[in-house]
Amino acid sequence: MTQPFPFSAIVGQEEMKQAMILTAIDPGIGGVLVFGDRGTGKSTAVRALAALLPPIHAVASCPVNSPSLDQCPDWAHLTSTEIVTRPTPVVDLPLGVTEDRVVGALDIEKALTNGEKAFEPGLLARANRGYLYIDEVNLLEDHIVDLLLDVAQSGENVVEREGLSIRHPARFVLVGSGNPEEGELRPQLLDRFGLSVEVTSPKDIDTRIEVIRRRDTYEMDYEGFMEKWRPADAELRDRIVAARGHLKTMASDESVLRDCAELCLALGSDGLRGELTLLKASRALAAFEGADAVTRAHVRQVAPSALRHRLRRDPLDEAGSTTRVGRVVEEVLGEPA
Amino acid sequence: MTQPFPFSAIVGQEEMKQAMILTAIDPGIGGVLVFGDRGTGKSTAVRALAALLPPIHAVASCPVNSPSLDQCPDWAHLTSTEIVTRPTPVVDLPLGVTEDRVVGALDIEKALTNGEKAFEPGLLARANRGYLYIDEVNLLEDHIVDLLLDVAQSGENVVEREGLSIRHPARFVLVGSGNPEEGELRPQLLDRFGLSVEVTSPKDIDTRIEVIRRRDTYEMDYEGFMEKWRPADAELRDRIVAARGHLKTMASDESVLRDCAELCLALGSDGLRGELTLLKASRALAAFEGADAVTRAHVRQVAPSALRHRLRRDPLDEAGSTTRVGRVVEEVLGEPA
Amino acid sequence: MTQPFPFSAIVGQEEMKQAMILTAIDPGIGGVLVFGDRGTGKSTAVRALAALLPPIHAVASCPVNSPSLDQCPDWAHLTSTEIVTRPTPVVDLPLGVTEDRVVGALDIEKALTNGEKAFEPGLLARANRGYLYIDEVNLLEDHIVDLLLDVAQSGENVVEREGLSIRHPARFVLVGSGNPEEGELRPQLLDRFGLSVEVTSPKDIDTRIEVIRRRDTYEMDYEGFMEKWRPADAELRDRIVAARGHLKTMASDESVLRDCAELCLALGSDGLRGELTLLKASRALAAFEGADAVTRAHVRQVAPSALRHRLRRDPLDEAGSTTRVGRVVEEVLGEPA
Amino acid sequence: MTQPFPFSAIVGQEEMKQAMILTAIDPGIGGVLVFGDRGTGKSTAVRALAALLPPIHAVASCPVNSPSLDQCPDWAHLTSTEIVTRPTPVVDLPLGVTEDRVVGALDIEKALTNGEKAFEPGLLARANRGYLYIDEVNLLEDHIVDLLLDVAQSGENVVEREGLSIRHPARFVLVGSGNPEEGELRPQLLDRFGLSVEVTSPKDIDTRIEVIRRRDTYEMDYEGFMEKWRPADAELRDRIVAARGHLKTMASDESVLRDCAELCLALGSDGLRGELTLLKASRALAAFEGADAVTRAHVRQVAPSALRHRLRRDPLDEAGSTTRVGRVVEEVLGEPA
Amino acid sequence: MTQPFPFSAIVGQEEMKQAMILTAIDPGIGGVLVFGDRGTGKSTAVRALAALLPPIHAVASCPVNSPSLDQCPDWAHLTSTEIVTRPTPVVDLPLGVTEDRVVGALDIEKALTNGEKAFEPGLLARANRGYLYIDEVNLLEDHIVDLLLDVAQSGENVVEREGLSIRHPARFVLVGSGNPEEGELRPQLLDRFGLSVEVTSPKDIDTRIEVIRRRDTYEMDYEGFMEKWRPADAELRDRIVAARGHLKTMASDESVLRDCAELCLALGSDGLRGELTLLKASRALAAFEGADAVTRAHVRQVAPSALRHRLRRDPLDEAGSTTRVGRVVEEVLGEPA
Amino acid sequence: MTQPFPFSAIVGQEEMKQAMILTAIDPGIGGVLVFGDRGTGKSTAVRALAALLPPIHAVASCPVNSPSLDQCPDWAHLTSTEIVTRPTPVVDLPLGVTEDRVVGALDIEKALTNGEKAFEPGLLARANRGYLYIDEVNLLEDHIVDLLLDVAQSGENVVEREGLSIRHPARFVLVGSGNPEEGELRPQLLDRFGLSVEVTSPKDIDTRIEVIRRRDTYEMDYEGFMEKWRPADAELRDRIVAARGHLKTMASDESVLRDCAELCLALGSDGLRGELTLLKASRALAAFEGADAVTRAHVRQVAPSALRHRLRRDPLDEAGSTTRVGRVVEEVLGEPA
Repeated sequence: MTQPFPFSAIVGQEEMKQAMILTAIDPGIGGVLVFGDRGTGKSTAVRALAALLPPIHAVASCPVNSPSLDQCPDWAHLTSTEIVTRPTPVVDLPLGVTEDRVVGALDIEKALTNGEKAFEPGLLARANRGYLYIDEVNLLEDHIVDLLLDVAQSGENVVEREGLSIRHPARFVLVGSGNPEEGELRPQLLDRFGLSVEVTSPKDIDTRIEVIRRRDTYEMDYEGFMEKWRPADAELRDRIVAARGHLKTMASDESVLRDCAELCLALGSDGLRGELTLLKASRALAAFEGADAVTRAHVRQVAPSALRHRLRRDPLDEAGSTTRVGRVVEEVLGEPA
Repeated sequence: MTQPFPFSAIVGQEEMKQAMILTAIDPGIGGVLVFGDRGTGKSTAVRALAALLPPIHAVASCPVNSPSLDQCPDWAHLTSTEIVTRPTPVVDLPLGVTEDRVVGALDIEKALTNGEKAFEPGLLARANRGYLYIDEVNLLEDHIVDLLLDVAQSGENVVEREGLSIRHPARFVLVGSGNPEEGELRPQLLDRFGLSVEVTSPKDIDTRIEVIRRRDTYEMDYEGFMEKWRPADAELRDRIVAARGHLKTMASDESVLRDCAELCLALGSDGLRGELTLLKASRALAAFEGADAVTRAHVRQVAPSALRHRLRRDPLDEAGSTTRVGRVVEEVLGEPA
Repeated sequence: MTQPFPFSAIVGQEEMKQAMILTAIDPGIGGVLVFGDRGTGKSTAVRALAALLPPIHAVASCPVNSPSLDQCPDWAHLTSTEIVTRPTPVVDLPLGVTEDRVVGALDIEKALTNGEKAFEPGLLARANRGYLYIDEVNLLEDHIVDLLLDVAQSGENVVEREGLSIRHPARFVLVGSGNPEEGELRPQLLDRFGLSVEVTSPKDIDTRIEVIRRRDTYEMDYEGFMEKWRPADAELRDRIVAARGHLKTMASDESVLRDCAELCLALGSDGLRGELTLLKASRALAAFEGADAVTRAHVRQVAPSALRHRLRRDPLDEAGSTTRVGRVVEEVLGEPA
Repeated sequence: MTQPFPFSAIVGQEEMKQAMILTAIDPGIGGVLVFGDRGTGKSTAVRALAALLPPIHAVASCPVNSPSLDQCPDWAHLTSTEIVTRPTPVVDLPLGVTEDRVVGALDIEKALTNGEKAFEPGLLARANRGYLYIDEVNLLEDHIVDLLLDVAQSGENVVEREGLSIRHPARFVLVGSGNPEEGELRPQLLDRFGLSVEVTSPKDIDTRIEVIRRRDTYEMDYEGFMEKWRPADAELRDRIVAARGHLKTMASDESVLRDCAELCLALGSDGLRGELTLLKASRALAAFEGADAVTRAHVRQVAPSALRHRLRRDPLDEAGSTTRVGRVVEEVLGEPA
Repeated sequence: MTQPFPFSAIVGQEEMKQAMILTAIDPGIGGVLVFGDRGTGKSTAVRALAALLPPIHAVASCPVNSPSLDQCPDWAHLTSTEIVTRPTPVVDLPLGVTEDRVVGALDIEKALTNGEKAFEPGLLARANRGYLYIDEVNLLEDHIVDLLLDVAQSGENVVEREGLSIRHPARFVLVGSGNPEEGELRPQLLDRFGLSVEVTSPKDIDTRIEVIRRRDTYEMDYEGFMEKWRPADAELRDRIVAARGHLKTMASDESVLRDCAELCLALGSDGLRGELTLLKASRALAAFEGADAVTRAHVRQVAPSALRHRLRRDPLDEAGSTTRVGRVVEEVLGEPA
Repeated sequence: MTQPFPFSAIVGQEEMKQAMILTAIDPGIGGVLVFGDRGTGKSTAVRALAALLPPIHAVASCPVNSPSLDQCPDWAHLTSTEIVTRPTPVVDLPLGVTEDRVVGALDIEKALTNGEKAFEPGLLARANRGYLYIDEVNLLEDHIVDLLLDVAQSGENVVEREGLSIRHPARFVLVGSGNPEEGELRPQLLDRFGLSVEVTSPKDIDTRIEVIRRRDTYEMDYEGFMEKWRPADAELRDRIVAARGHLKTMASDESVLRDCAELCLALGSDGLRGELTLLKASRALAAFEGADAVTRAHVRQVAPSALRHRLRRDPLDEAGSTTRVGRVVEEVLGEPA
C-alpha cells in the first residue's frame, strides 16, 4: 500500500491548502467547498492532509473510532478494550452510494438470522474524527448534501428509520469538490459550508512542468520522492498540533468582532454564519501563525474563503465573487499595512 | 450533554419569542410558522423554549408520554407504573424521514419473529405533549405537511394502513421554519398554521456584535454563560405556568369578538380560522400579562402574527403583508392609545 | 370523548344542510360535493349530521355493520350473534391512504402465519350504512375518486386483486369537499355526484360574531352548549326518520317528470343522471316537508344543488353556474308562485 | 339479487343494440366499441344482453367455464365432473385492475405454503365464453388494451411470466365504452375492434321522459317491471339462438365479397380487417333476419358500425365519420331499394 | 389445434416472402424487419414459413432444443437422451413481456424451496433453432431490441445478473414488424437488421377479393383449404432444404464483391454491414435458384431488401428509400439484362 | 470455440490499433474511447488485441485472477493453490447490466441458505488484469461511466452497500465505443479517458473489398485464414512484451515535459491530465519502437489521440478537433523533421 502524495509537495494552490489547514486546527469552522476544474488535485489534497495529521487512538472494534470504551455507543455492544493507533480516517462518498450506507441502516443479516433489530453503522460512523470527501458535490441530491451538512454541524448522526432510533458521534470535516459549470448548489447549502476556495490549473508553463515532474517522479521513483518530502510534512504537522493547543486561549477583542460584523453587513450576507465562521477561521490562522491575539490582518487573510460563497448574486455587478469580497474588505478594513 | 442556548439570551426577535410563548401557554392556538433567512436562530429558539418549560411527568415506558398508566394507549401493552420526570419533548423531523416514521407503522421485527401485527409508534407519538420542529417546512411534500397539521389540530394520530387501525393522542405545537425564497406553501396550508412570524438578520452593527459575542461565549465559556442567564429563564417559566392557569377564567366580551371579526372581514381572510386564532392568541397574551380581561390592546398586539399569513395576494397592493395588516388594524381598531 | 358540534347550531349554510338532510333521507340520491373555502365548517357539518341520525343496530363483530348475522359476508366467518347499537358510521379518508386500505386487501398477518388467504376489509367496509368523508376530494387521484363513486353508486365493493375475489355491501353517502381554486374535478366525475353545494364565509359581521361565539362556547362550556341544542337536533332527527317512511308512497305525476326532463334539456346536461337525481331529490324534499306529492316547488328548490355541477362550460356566458341554473329554472318553470 | 334492466326495455339506441346482438350471434366479428356521453346506458346494455342470452353449461370448478372435463386446462387439476348451468359471464375490468389480475399470475398462496408454482387464473379466464366489459377504455393504458384485443382475437390467453408458461381458452366479446372528449384510442387499436357505435342522450323530450319513467319504475316497482318485459326478452333470445345455427350454411356470393372490398377501398381503410368484419357482420345480420343469403342490403345496414372507426382522418373533409361512411356507401352500393 | 395459414396461399407480398425464404436458407443474413400497415398478414407469414420448414430433431427435455445430449447446456442437468421431432419453433414476444422472461432469470421456485441458484431459461432459449417474432418492434424499448439483435447476431445468450453467469446457444431469425407511422427505430438499430421489406394492402380490387376469399375459406372450410395447398408448400420446403446444402460451395468471385462494395459506397451506407449482408443474401438467392455462382442479377434482386434501411436520410431527396436504392442500383450495376 | 479475428488482419484503422497497443504496453495511460460508425470493427479490435496478448497465470479459483494465492482477496476464502494459464480476460458490459453485476453485490444464495453475508464478485472482478469493453458508452448512465473510470484509474473496486465493505484489485483497460451522433459524453467524463480515436468506414473501394474478402474468408475458411495470420500476430505480441520491459528505464528529459505542457497550455485543456497522459503515451510509443528516449517525434505522433477529446468547444472555430490538435502541434512543436 502506497502513501498518498505528500501535502507539502503540492505545487501552489495556497488558498486551498490554507483552508484545509485551518479546518484541521478547528473543525468547528465547518466544511470546505473546493470549486474548480477536474484534474487540479482536489482529491489529492484532502488525502494528503489526512496522511499528514497525527494518527488517532481508538478502541479497536469501535465503529465510530471512540478514544475510550466508555465513549463507544451502547448499540455497538463492544467488549474488547484494546486501544489501537490509526491514521486519521478519510471516507469517500462513492458515486451511487445509498442513503442507507451513509447514515447506517438495519442490519439485514442479523434481522434475518437472529430476528434481532441491530444497527449497521454507515459511512458517517466511519468518518468520525476524520474527513468525509465528496467528489462533485453538486451532482449529489440536495437532501443528501443537507443531511451531511446537518450531521457535520451537529457532530451527531441521528437515525430514525425502519424502527431504529439510534444516535452516535459523527464529528468530521466535510470536504466537497465541485465544478461550477456542472450545476450549482442552492444558496442555502452554500451558506452551510464554512470555507470555500477556488482552484485552477496553473497557467504558467514552468509551474505546470513542475507539477508534471513531481507527479511523474512520485509514480516512477516513489521511495525517493516520499523520503525527500517527509521533513516538510513533519514540520507542518507540528505546527497544526501546536495551533490546536493555542486555540482556547487566543484573545479576540471587540475590534475583531466589529471587523467581522462590518464586513458581513457590507457584503450583505444572510444570517450570522458568516461572522462566526470568519471569527473562528481568523482565530485558527492566528493560532497557526503562533500569534497571541487575532488581528485585523488575520481577518483580512481568511475573509475571501469565509465569505466568497455567501454573497447574494448581484446582477448589476459583473465582478466575480472573489473580486467583490476583496473590494469590500478594502473598503471596510482599509488597505493592508 | 450540553443544554440548549438560553431562551432569554436570544437577542431581539421579539415577535418570534412572543409567538412561541403564546403557544406554550395555549397550544390550541396552533402551529407557528417562522419565515426568514437561515442562520437567524429559528431552530435555536424552539429548543431554547422547550428547555425553559417545566419538565413533564410521564409513565416511563409509555410511547406517548402519558401522565398516568390509564391514559396510555391499549396497543402499548404496558405494565410498569413508574412515573418519571422528563424535559418537554422536542422532536425534529429529520430530512428524508419517511411517512412510516412520522405516523408509525407495522413493527416489522415483531411481525417477522412472532407473526404478530404490532404497532411501532412514530415521531408523532414521541412529540405528544411537546414540540415538533420542521426545518424548511416548504421543502416537505404537501401531503406530509397537511397530515402534520391535521394531527396537530385534532390532537390525535389516526393510522389506517397495513391492516393497522390505531389511534393515539398526539398533542404538540408544530413549529415550521421556512425560507420564502425557496418555494411557498399553498395558501390552504398557510391558513392552518396558528401564528406566523418573520425573522431577519439584525441590520444594526452593535446588535450583530452582541449576537456573535453571546454565541461565541456560549461555546467558549459554556458554564459561566448558562449560570448568568438561568434567573431570567426561571422568571419567564413562572410567568408561562401562571398564564396557563389564568386562561380558563379570562373574560372576553362582545367588543373583543367584534374587533376580531371586523379585522378579519376587512382583511378579507378566508374562512373563520383567523378570528378564532386571534381571539385565542389575545387571550393567551392577556393571561401572560396578568390582565383580567382581553382588551383591544391585546388584539392589536397579536394581530400581525395571527393574520399576516391569511391575506389573499393583492396584485394591486405592493405593500408586504405585515404592512397591510398594520394598516387595516389602524383603520379598524384606531391608533393605539 | 366529546360529541361533535350540534347540527342545529350551525349558523347559516342552508343549502349545504339541505343537501345533507336529503341524502340522509334517500341515500340513492348519491354523493354530495361541497365547494368552498377552508374553515367554513364542511367537515363539522358531516360529523354533526351523522351524530344526529338515529343509531344503527349491527352484528357486533361484523366488518360491514350488517343488521343480522345472515347478512354478514361469508368471508368474515362470524359466529357471534350479538346485536349492538352503534352511531351511524362516519369514515374519514385520511390523507395518503392507500388503495389497499380503501377497498381492503389480503390480510398479510394471516397469510404469513397461517398461509391462509384471508380478506382484510378496508374503509369501504367500515363505511357501510354510513358516511364516507373526503376532505379536498380534488387532491385525490382520479382513479380513486372514480372507484369511490362506483362503489357508492352500486352499493357493493368488488375486490379483484392478489388472488382475492371478494364482494361486500358498501352502501354509504359520499361527501367530498373541495376548493375550486386548487384544481378541478373532471366533468365525468362531477356528473357522478348527486348534489353539489357552495359554501362561503359569511360576509355579515353579526353572523361572523355569532359563529365565533358558538364555536368558542362549544370549546369553553361544552356541557352547557350541548344541553342547549339537544332539543333542536332531536326534532330534526324525527323529521328525517319520518320522511324516510313517506318516500316509498310519495306520488310524482307526469308533469313532475316533464319538469325534470325539460330543465335538463334546457341546461344541456349530458346523459340522464341529472333528471333522475332531480326527481329523487325533489321526492326526498317533499317527504321531509310532509307533503303528499312532489310538486314543481320541490323541483325548483333542489334544482340548483342537483344540476349546478352538470353544466357544460359556456365560454360566451360569464355568469356562474348557480346563476345559470336559476335563469333556466325561471324560463322553464316560470317564476315561483 | 336483482336481475339487470331488461334488454328489450332499453329505449332507442338501435345501432348499439344491433351491434351487441350481432356479436352475440358471431363472436368472431370482434369487440364492440361504444362511444358516447356517460349516463347513456352503455354498461346497462351489455349487462342486459348477457342476462338475455341462454345460460351456458360448464364444469362446476373449471376456472374457464369449460363445457366438459376434457376441455379444462391441465394446470387446473380438476377432478369433479359436475356440470352446472350458469348465466353467460360478464366480467368487468374494475378501475385500477393490475395486469396480474387480468392475465393471471403465480399463485402466491400456493407458492408460499407448498413451494409449488401454480397458476392463479385472472379475469380473462373468467370471461371465457362471455363478455369482458371495460368502462372508459380510452383511459386504460395502451398495452393493456392491446393485450385484451390480442386475446379476444386469438381466443387464447398466453402467459409468459414469473417462470410460468400457461395457455388457456379465452373466447369472449370485448365491449369497451369511451368518451371521445377524454382522449382517443390510437388508430392501431381502433382498427382491432370489430364494430363501433355512437350513442347520445335523446334530444326528444318524450323519449327522455320515457327513459326516466322506465328507470324509475324499475327501481320503485321491480317485480312488476320485470314481469312486463320478460316475453320480449324471451323472443329476442330465441332469434339469436336460431341465428347462430344458420350462420354456417349462410351463402355469400362473389358480389357480396366485391361490395365489401369496394367499400373498403373507397374508404381507404388500412389492411383487410374492414372487409372481413363487414362480411361477417353482414352474414350475422342475414342469419338474425332469417334470410337465406347475405345481400347488399345487409352489407349496407352494418357498414357504418363495421367501418366508421377505420377511416383515416381527412383534414379537408369536416364531415363526421358516420356521414363519410354513409356517403361512400351510397356512391359504391347505390341508394337503397 | 389448427395449422397456420399455408405459406403458398399468401396472395402477393413477394418481397416479404423472398426475405423470409432467404433467411430460412442462411440465418446468418440476420433479422427481417417488415414495415407496413396492420392487417397485411405479417404475423401470418412468419407462422406460415415456420410451419413449412422441416421439423427439427431435439433432445426432448432440452430447454434450447439441442440436437444431441452433449450439446445441451450444463446448467440444464438433463439425463434423458430421448430425441424427439418438433416443428421449427416460433416464439412470440408477448406485449409487456419482462426482460427476465426474455433472457431467463433466477428460478425463484428452486431458490425458495431448495435454496439453490438455478437458471430458468427464457424465450431466447426456446427460440433457439427457430424464429423470434416481435409485433410492433418500434414500440419495444430500444435496449430490449438491442439485446435481441445482439443475441441474434452472436447466436449466444449471455446472462449476467442476480449472481447468475450463464450462456446458451440462441440461434434464431428475428422477425420484427413495425408501422412507420408509430415511431421509428433508431438508425443504429435499423442497421443491425439484415433485410427489410415493405408491405401494403393490395390496391387492386380482385386481389383484395382473392385475399378475403382465401381467409374466409380457411376459416369456413379448413380441411379442404389445407389439402389444396399442401403440395405447393411441400415443393417450397424441398427447395429451401436443397439451397441450404448448396450454400457452402457457392462461388462468388471478385466482381460480385466489387458490385456489393460499389453499391454501398454509392448509397453512402455506414459501416460494412451492408456489403456483407448483400453478399450473403445474394448467395442464398443463388442457392435457392439452383445457380452455380452468385451473379450480378442476384445482387440486383436482393439489393432493395438488404440496403433500403441503411440509407442516410437525405433532406434534399424526397424520393422514398426504395426508389433511391433502385436508382443507385441502376447507376452502379446498369440496367438488368 | 473459434478464436477472434486476428489483430494483424484488421485492414487500416491505424490510429485505433496504435491506441490499443500503447495501453497494452502501459495500462496506466488509461482507457480508450473509440468514436465512429457502427460496423467499423471496434468490438472486433479489442477482442483481437486481447487474444494476441500472452496468456496470464492465475490462481484457478480466484475471482480476480490473482497471480498467486497470497494476492487473492480475503473474502474469497480460497484454499486451492493451483495456478492455471488463461487468455487475457475481455469482459463485455452487456446492455442492461445492473450496477450490482458490475461492482458485485451481496450473494443472495448464501444469504438465504446460510444467513451469511458473503460477497458475490461482479464484472469488475472478472476484468482484473484484462479489458473491459463497453459498446455505446454514451448510452450508459453517467454515474456508471464515472464509476468505471474511477475504478479503472484507481485499480481498485470499493464496494459500500447492503452492509458490505469490500475492496479488491480491478486493474483493467477500459475500452468504450461510441457514436457521436447518439448523444455525447459530458466533458468531465471525456477528460478521464486516456486516449481517444476516430474510426470511419474506408471510402476507398479496394480497401472495402479487402475488408469484405477477409471477413468472408474468416467465416468460410476459418482454419486457413487463422493459419495465414498467426506469424504476424506473434511478432506483434513479442514487440509489446519487449516494450513493457523497456518502459521503466525510458528516459524523458526536460524538453519533452516542456513540449507536453506547452501543447496542453496552447490547446487550453483543463487540468493536468492531458500532460501526464501525453507523457505516458509518448513513453509507451518510444518503448514500442525500441527507442532509448522519448523524443518530440513520439509526442507529436500520439498527441491527437491524447488530446483530441480534451479541447474546449470553440464556437468560432469550425474545424474538427483532430484538425485543431494538428494545427496547434505544428505551431508549438514545429513541422515534423
